[in-house]
Amino acid sequence: MNEEKILVGIIMGSVSDWDTMRHAHETLEQFGVVHECQIVSAHRTPELLRDYSQSAEGRGLEVIIAGAGGAAHLPGMAAAFTVLPVLGVPVESHALKGQDSLLSIVQMPGGIPVGTLAIGKAGAINAALLAVAILANSRPELRQKLHAFRTSQTEKVLAMELPL
Amino acid sequence: MNEEKILVGIIMGSVSDWDTMRHAHETLEQFGVVHECQIVSAHRTPELLRDYSQSAEGRGLEVIIAGAGGAAHLPGMAAAFTVLPVLGVPVESHALKGQDSLLSIVQMPGGIPVGTLAIGKAGAINAALLAVAILANSRPELRQKLHAFRTSQTEKVLAMELPL
Amino acid sequence: MNEEKILVGIIMGSVSDWDTMRHAHETLEQFGVVHECQIVSAHRTPELLRDYSQSAEGRGLEVIIAGAGGAAHLPGMAAAFTVLPVLGVPVESHALKGQDSLLSIVQMPGGIPVGTLAIGKAGAINAALLAVAILANSRPELRQKLHAFRTSQTEKVLAMELPL
Amino acid sequence: MNEEKILVGIIMGSVSDWDTMRHAHETLEQFGVVHECQIVSAHRTPELLRDYSQSAEGRGLEVIIAGAGGAAHLPGMAAAFTVLPVLGVPVESHALKGQDSLLSIVQMPGGIPVGTLAIGKAGAINAALLAVAILANSRPELRQKLHAFRTSQTEKVLAMELPL
Amino acid sequence: MNEEKILVGIIMGSVSDWDTMRHAHETLEQFGVVHECQIVSAHRTPELLRDYSQSAEGRGLEVIIAGAGGAAHLPGMAAAFTVLPVLGVPVESHALKGQDSLLSIVQMPGGIPVGTLAIGKAGAINAALLAVAILANSRPELRQKLHAFRTSQTEKVLAMELPL
Amino acid sequence: MNEEKILVGIIMGSVSDWDTMRHAHETLEQFGVVHECQIVSAHRTPELLRDYSQSAEGRGLEVIIAGAGGAAHLPGMAAAFTVLPVLGVPVESHALKGQDSLLSIVQMPGGIPVGTLAIGKAGAINAALLAVAILANSRPELRQKLHAFRTSQTEKVLAMELPL
Amino acid sequence: MNEEKILVGIIMGSVSDWDTMRHAHETLEQFGVVHECQIVSAHRTPELLRDYSQSAEGRGLEVIIAGAGGAAHLPGMAAAFTVLPVLGVPVESHALKGQDSLLSIVQMPGGIPVGTLAIGKAGAINAALLAVAILANSRPELRQKLHAFRTSQTEKVLAMELPL
Amino acid sequence: MNEEKILVGIIMGSVSDWDTMRHAHETLEQFGVVHECQIVSAHRTPELLRDYSQSAEGRGLEVIIAGAGGAAHLPGMAAAFTVLPVLGVPVESHALKGQDSLLSIVQMPGGIPVGTLAIGKAGAINAALLAVAILANSRPELRQKLHAFRTSQTEKVLAMELPL
Repeated sequence: MNEEKILVGIIMGSVSDWDTMRHAHETLEQFGVVHECQIVSAHRTPELLRDYSQSAEGRGLEVIIAGAGGAAHLPGMAAAFTVLPVLGVPVESHALKGQDSLLSIVQMPGGIPVGTLAIGKAGAINAALLAVAILANSRPELRQKLHAFRTSQTEKVLAMELPL
Repeated sequence: MNEEKILVGIIMGSVSDWDTMRHAHETLEQFGVVHECQIVSAHRTPELLRDYSQSAEGRGLEVIIAGAGGAAHLPGMAAAFTVLPVLGVPVESHALKGQDSLLSIVQMPGGIPVGTLAIGKAGAINAALLAVAILANSRPELRQKLHAFRTSQTEKVLAMELPL
Repeated sequence: MNEEKILVGIIMGSVSDWDTMRHAHETLEQFGVVHECQIVSAHRTPELLRDYSQSAEGRGLEVIIAGAGGAAHLPGMAAAFTVLPVLGVPVESHALKGQDSLLSIVQMPGGIPVGTLAIGKAGAINAALLAVAILANSRPELRQKLHAFRTSQTEKVLAMELPL
Repeated sequence: MNEEKILVGIIMGSVSDWDTMRHAHETLEQFGVVHECQIVSAHRTPELLRDYSQSAEGRGLEVIIAGAGGAAHLPGMAAAFTVLPVLGVPVESHALKGQDSLLSIVQMPGGIPVGTLAIGKAGAINAALLAVAILANSRPELRQKLHAFRTSQTEKVLAMELPL
Repeated sequence: MNEEKILVGIIMGSVSDWDTMRHAHETLEQFGVVHECQIVSAHRTPELLRDYSQSAEGRGLEVIIAGAGGAAHLPGMAAAFTVLPVLGVPVESHALKGQDSLLSIVQMPGGIPVGTLAIGKAGAINAALLAVAILANSRPELRQKLHAFRTSQTEKVLAMELPL
Repeated sequence: MNEEKILVGIIMGSVSDWDTMRHAHETLEQFGVVHECQIVSAHRTPELLRDYSQSAEGRGLEVIIAGAGGAAHLPGMAAAFTVLPVLGVPVESHALKGQDSLLSIVQMPGGIPVGTLAIGKAGAINAALLAVAILANSRPELRQKLHAFRTSQTEKVLAMELPL
Repeated sequence: MNEEKILVGIIMGSVSDWDTMRHAHETLEQFGVVHECQIVSAHRTPELLRDYSQSAEGRGLEVIIAGAGGAAHLPGMAAAFTVLPVLGVPVESHALKGQDSLLSIVQMPGGIPVGTLAIGKAGAINAALLAVAILANSRPELRQKLHAFRTSQTEKVLAMELPL
Repeated sequence: MNEEKILVGIIMGSVSDWDTMRHAHETLEQFGVVHECQIVSAHRTPELLRDYSQSAEGRGLEVIIAGAGGAAHLPGMAAAFTVLPVLGVPVESHALKGQDSLLSIVQMPGGIPVGTLAIGKAGAINAALLAVAILANSRPELRQKLHAFRTSQTEKVLAMELPL
């Protein structure tokens, strides 16, 4: 992919979410998708969240990936401020293990959508893969990469051996 | 109470929340606390939410009561935009019966507090009572009313008779 | 939008899911997005699911919306057979009220993403809106429609009056 | 703040709750709010709970913060014996991770309010912050401190860097 | 049974709990166990709860049955004020269907026991049956009645016919 | 207490439950209540369970304490075979942390009561204390011990000091 | 199938379970599998449960289907008394909607298996279908019927039309 | 057992499931049941899953045991492609501890049955035991082994001694 424009923004509420969200970053790296990673807190930097989300379309972003835990408002509030596709990653919380994060992200009211992925690392990886799939709708070379990724993934499973 | 200034703002995301939140309104009425009721949606009117919350302190409000259901971001986002005490009422949602509303409101990260009440009608009544208790710290006549309310409430229970 | 090509496929496991999924259909109608609606059951028509999902890319679809309840395997299995973006709608189930549907759809392993929306009607509406947002990345007139939709939605909330 | 009067009482059921509740104490320290910390068990010292709660108003307290785990009755019973604002902190329990504590505290019946915060450390910090917000309604210097706290908190998030 | 002394006290927080708790009453009637039924609210009549519980032993009661819903503190607080056996009945709550009631009653800390029964009607019946079993330890005629009850119950099941 | 007769039987499904159930044993020791501890598995020794439960009354037992985890059938099946008071202790299970144990024990149908205590150690202690309370109805010296236990417990709490 | 021997026993704890369990009966009817339906209560007729389960193998039964709700011990206790395959159907309970039934049936300890189906009607149908699949291992004509059933089921889905 | 034909297929989605599923393997070994173990992923090797499941009957398998975690679609999709009895083992997932796995497997719609066992190791052992019970219907020597296994298991429990 020859685009240099930033296409995906990965945001998260705190540096402590990086351990989860870096998997989204690494997956996008793997696909050569230009993206940015930034700390944006719905509760502690609400102005930044608003500015970030409102300016994203103008800056040419096509997908926002937002990760948050507990009463996770970041993905939904980003979605409130933009019409771009927003994908939400529920970060595993301490006491409730991400059940609060999941429900806070996925149960959005009709009108403001957030595409929600699984709790934790798998969700971060899949948010990136879904972002790639979205971008790939108008970028044939990305779609090829997705097919190659799937083929390789299938081959890895087929090659796995049980320690019998 | 002779104050005419609005002391409490009751906000909710949709007119459909009124069936729950009117109990907060009626309870404040009962105590003669001047207040306002308004529809403010975190997701559909995020600018209004920001303006409402940021201007509340300047307008002399002392408590904000916010009711919302599902991925309920209204109380937490109001709290992000003001240092006033914010009380959250989880409105009972259709599928998950308010479990999503409760977790979305109560599980706030350290730094931005929301005092959360029970799901539904009881929570709306109690948000109003807690607001009255907060106001009463500097208004002796309100504290007297609270004592009278409690005495009356106790007497009502003592007068209840089982249909034996 | 002048495209006549089908861009979105809405699939569901049973005619009983239509009461939920028709909201996705109606929302796409509202945006003039050409789409198709079809019954495809992961468990009772697995061959159809495979054929449908595998052929979707070749047929020019850009998004698949899959609704299912209980042990809801339709969205995840559609995603396993295509690299297109797949959006999942947890249909409210009888006993567990969609908690089973939600977890069966959202907790996908890393490698095969499903963007999951809320349980029930709100989720169906939002799946359509997210599909429109995805399509809008390369269709400016759709993006305009999204902005208009949001503006209208905001105005409706601002115009709501509480029955005080 | 020049007041020397104790304004906030922090109570908890056992010394084992201190690991959570000390965060409320430390937060109040940070704001210079005069307060007291005491062990009061609803179940093992019910008379003390009654005396403590009934005398709190007369002693000039303006907020009670109560932390408890499991079948957590301390906040609700304190609220039953006083008209002061009572804030409840669900302490994380061993088996159910605070889900029991949360429901036991938040689901109070209409008539006796407890403003409930998040499970564990974040809840303890926020109980203190909410207490400060309540006190600040009649203490402009505390409100200034809250604004400074928020500004500083926002700056800390803005200064965070991801280990990219 | 020739005893005229009240042996069992059935208490509940509100007249609305009677629809559940009357099943405890009716079951004790069936066994001829002298008992009393009274409304005692942990939150709205805490002094009455204390007096009732503290005087129960002196009045000759041998078992207290307490029913409550939501943040159900009645059984646990009764147990805090007496060394008599206390049995708790979680009344089905509106939003959470008694899950809050159950956890608030059963998850008591070590030191203050409450023997908890099932949510709702079955729990009320069984609280009465367990009370009878407790009384029967020193009342052979009650134990006989329990055996007769079980035999009759078994016979009823054996006589049931499926509508084949 | 001068009785040498075994008054309480503590049963559990496996030696792995001992780590929890020994707290019931130690509590009864503390009160000098003669009791026995035995492994009886509902699923793996159903005949033993039947014989144990059916013979308990004849052997003079007055209370059975049964601890079990997961699909915990031991307390309920013991109760099915005896009219003695049966107390159930939900042992914390690996995956579901005792939620399965709790529901399997407490949700008994009307007709066969099991007085259920908290999950884990606290529940085991309290099962013993409730057994003592039951025995104490006809043993004044045990009731005295209970009062002394409570007084001592209260004093311990009053003597606790926070590490301020 | 020309066998006249009873191959499957359907048992349930109460006549009220018939509304669910009749779907197992009707499904077996549909396949012409000779079976019996009987009320057997784990708690109220434990001796009958024991006799039924212990004699099932000798009577030539090849599968037992047991349906129960709440603290559902019937399937697990049947499995404790026989080595035949036992299938469990969690009947939807009133308050907890079958979550208690499900966990009480499925979370069996290693050593005593119960094959558990879905909560309610779908589970009853599937218990019968799984029983047919088990019987079909040694009855080719039943396996044919299963294939025909599946084909017909697939055709029905393919013939469904959405009310567009 | 003198059969050399493979009778049971154990499949799982990833090599990481082996730690759970090896208990099914070891239990079948213990009974001398010829079986195979293979990695088959519903999501990453859907074609293999289809081929495996469709060919299983023709290859003479009589039972398929499928283990999977999270949004666990393997057992249900295997069942969709075969009429053989399929047994599902919910593998404990990281965040939700297997609650997602359990619901994804057990809540199958009417028409496609999966006999579900407990979460984790106990479920894997019991899946194997249930497979043996199914095979034993037409293999008397296996049924003998099951009786011997049960007897031995009972004896082990009877021989257990508490560390009193």
